[in-house]
Amino acid sequence: MIKKSGFDIKAIEMDDKEIRRVKKKVLIGPEDGSHNIIMRKFTVSPDGFTPFHTHDFEHVVKIENGKGIVIDESGKKIPVVQGDVLFINNNEEHQFQNPFDEPFEFLCIILNQGKN
Amino acid sequence: MIKKSGFDIKAIEMDDKEIRRVKKKVLIGPEDGSHNIIMRKFTVSPDGFTPFHTHDFEHVVKIENGKGIVIDESGKKIPVVQGDVLFINNNEEHQFQNPFDEPFEFLCIILNQGKN
Repeated sequence: MIKKSGFDIKAIEMDDKEIRRVKKKVLIGPEDGSHNIIMRKFTVSPDGFTPFHTHDFEHVVKIENGKGIVIDESGKKIPVVQGDVLFINNNEEHQFQNPFDEPFEFLCIILNQGKN
Repeated sequence: MIKKSGFDIKAIEMDDKEIRRVKKKVLIGPEDGSHNIIMRKFTVSPDGFTPFHTHDFEHVVKIENGKGIVIDESGKKIPVVQGDVLFINNNEEHQFQNPFDEPFEFLCIILNQGKN
């Protein structure tokens, strides 16, 4: 059994044209011995966003803190708040945005064959 | 894309000899179209516990609220608090206990081929 505090895990800062003001932590992944499941935590600061993109692996998401906007493949803006959960299918376009004034935090769980 | 509020999902109450004062919610699972990943939330009330058991699928766990004790396969008591994450391997015995006076809540993520 592996136990870690999520608070101690180093965050990777992501900030370029397609992704702005986003921090990622791999909470549990292959380095912990997990064969199949990777649990990541994303923190999107105010005015930040993830890429509007698609990939061939599914996302299971839980909003942990704050609120945000998810853009679905039709371009619709879906408001999300703490306690909401999402399933984003393979090859479904999506983006997370934080137009609000507090950090927007969510877990995003993928399979190991997905991108870390 | 599927969006749901975790607060609206019905909890299943579990209470017998091996599992006491535990509520389970399947936050995202096969009924949402998830092919591979099942995200469950467990609430263990004070004096509650899950079975001391093992199975052939791995657990990825995040403590969401409160605190508890995890018993590992050697019988060691491991204290866990909000923000901690765990990886429990295939066939590794484990149990969650709540000897404290507030609800102990955690996410437990498994593969679809695992038990729902």
